[in-house]
Amino acid sequence: MKAIRTDMDIPDEIVAAVDHGGSIGRARALFPQAPEPFVDLSTGINPHSYPLFEVPATALSRLPEQGRVDELTAIAADVYGVPSARHVVAAPGTQILLPRVATLVAPGKARVLGPTYAEHVRAADIAGHKVEEVSEFEALYGADLAIVVNPNNPDGGVVERDQLLTLAASLRAKGGLLVVDEAFMDVGPREQSLAGDVEQGGVVVLRSFGKFFGLAGVRLGFVLTDDVTASRLAAQLGPWAVSGPALEYGIRALGDTNWQDAMRARLAGETSRLDGLLSRHGVPVAGGTKLFRYIAFDQAGSLFSVLGERGILLRHFMGRPNVLRIGLPGGAEEWQRLEAALAQWSIVKAAGAHR
Amino acid sequence: MKAIRTDMDIPDEIVAAVDHGGSIGRARALFPQAPEPFVDLSTGINPHSYPLFEVPATALSRLPEQGRVDELTAIAADVYGVPSARHVVAAPGTQILLPRVATLVAPGKARVLGPTYAEHVRAADIAGHKVEEVSEFEALYGADLAIVVNPNNPDGGVVERDQLLTLAASLRAKGGLLVVDEAFMDVGPREQSLAGDVEQGGVVVLRSFGKFFGLAGVRLGFVLTDDVTASRLAAQLGPWAVSGPALEYGIRALGDTNWQDAMRARLAGETSRLDGLLSRHGVPVAGGTKLFRYIAFDQAGSLFSVLGERGILLRHFMGRPNVLRIGLPGGAEEWQRLEAALAQWSIVKAAGAHR
Repeated sequence: MKAIRTDMDIPDEIVAAVDHGGSIGRARALFPQAPEPFVDLSTGINPHSYPLFEVPATALSRLPEQGRVDELTAIAADVYGVPSARHVVAAPGTQILLPRVATLVAPGKARVLGPTYAEHVRAADIAGHKVEEVSEFEALYGADLAIVVNPNNPDGGVVERDQLLTLAASLRAKGGLLVVDEAFMDVGPREQSLAGDVEQGGVVVLRSFGKFFGLAGVRLGFVLTDDVTASRLAAQLGPWAVSGPALEYGIRALGDTNWQDAMRARLAGETSRLDGLLSRHGVPVAGGTKLFRYIAFDQAGSLFSVLGERGILLRHFMGRPNVLRIGLPGGAEEWQRLEAALAQWSIVKAAGAHR
Repeated sequence: MKAIRTDMDIPDEIVAAVDHGGSIGRARALFPQAPEPFVDLSTGINPHSYPLFEVPATALSRLPEQGRVDELTAIAADVYGVPSARHVVAAPGTQILLPRVATLVAPGKARVLGPTYAEHVRAADIAGHKVEEVSEFEALYGADLAIVVNPNNPDGGVVERDQLLTLAASLRAKGGLLVVDEAFMDVGPREQSLAGDVEQGGVVVLRSFGKFFGLAGVRLGFVLTDDVTASRLAAQLGPWAVSGPALEYGIRALGDTNWQDAMRARLAGETSRLDGLLSRHGVPVAGGTKLFRYIAFDQAGSLFSVLGERGILLRHFMGRPNVLRIGLPGGAEEWQRLEAALAQWSIVKAAGAHR
């Protein structure tokens, strides 16, 4: 039997290099023999992008117009359900905002509900906080800066709005801040969003444009918060923070609620299909969102490796060898390749069990 | 005679609103009767954009690839003349970097050689410095953070490299930092650039992509600095700071040195033409770069107003009523409209002189 390449065999620097998933260059370094193109299921980005269109030449040539930014934030306020555009700050992706959001509170105790998206710990650390990842929600009450990803990446865990509001009130009373990263809330249980509750202060909600709309390269994200905090963050970003193409795509796609509703239904169907497929091959789905599924079992390393060698890229996590995340295939051919690779993994697994 | 609208008649909030130039929405508020389209000469952005092309769909749909970022920084290192790509940080415009650069030094005394681009004072202030605009180069020696725009915006003044290096050495010896904003150096006296001198530390050079390449909406800028500082700034920006379209345009345009050389020659010719035109109408050019000219005379307010009413938008500056900046017209029709408007201004001026 061919040796199985597992996480354990991968050099540290390569594991570090694939940290966020989504890099074909790094996939090649990891699985040089894999057939190309890769089926990249390592991200939670919607494979069905909002329809591309030609942006006006002036969106590239001219400085972005403040009037266009105002249109975008007004539409975002409406779609996300914040009181007004004054509660919205548009940015070139949420990623670049994280250290800025973390500095809204003087350096103190930052606690991140985890395990979760690793960049929150890094950003709070850069901002000078003493950062701790905590596994119990109650432990967030002891923080100056509390960070929750809701629904959580990668396990899809949801914290209810009521719980978050009680925490926010407690933090606010002592000058603290609750950050809720709702990067996947477009497909999540939207009734649990804190977007409508930012006006009272002490809450920052992050929303991502690229994931649900499948336009991660455009770089667009939003902060939803009280108007004073919104002004502070906008001042940090300065004028022209959002590119012309991002403004054009943001205005059109966020304003297209028909597409959004249809896409939510489509993603729900495809997630069910993926769950069924994984289940038929003995891969247990332990959670996730409608944009990715969460797999936790002791054969995760083998699954990652066998699929990777066949050009199917899943997301693994440093220090968590039993955990994987898998995104949605982008079309019939990708589904077929995933199915074939899973079938081969079943054979490898059965052979291993008989040794 | 028709009343002349001058800076003095413009409500404060509108003057504040046109602060940076480049906004057609604000131009309309200022000159509601002007014929459209506006001839926007209020920025220093090249009206002859690098040729537009269709970026691959994946540049929009996928997360930007680190491999593409590495290509871009390698090309930038080559074109700007820094020792290696490790001395380059790419960002979504230089604007968003300014407060991050200002925080490389602990809060102290920041001094900006001025008058100059207003965002440097604002950024240093946000970073917690006590900020002063100084008019004498020697005064920069007393700063922890010294900022020079070279060539200067709007007057085009150039500080020689030797002077800057001596200042940098002095600041470095006491843990200070020299920031040189070379936003217009692509058309400036490139032998005065500090790009080749960043390795020794204590120097941050900012380069802008959008101005010379006429692609301000793309949002792309660079920091050139020592490798330790480059790593610190890159960590602040996090992964995926530069959008897919910005990567594609940056790689192609920065790599196209033929276009760059031809464009420099073209801009030099057009600047001469503009100087001749202004001079024939009694408008003295007091400086500038090959992307904009600097006008300083006591009729600046009247010139701004008369041209604005005819849809020709110049840049004026709050608190400096005798100063204007004028960019290059983008084609034959814009040249004609500028010439016609200047002719009318000559008549208005003559009429005023006879009153």
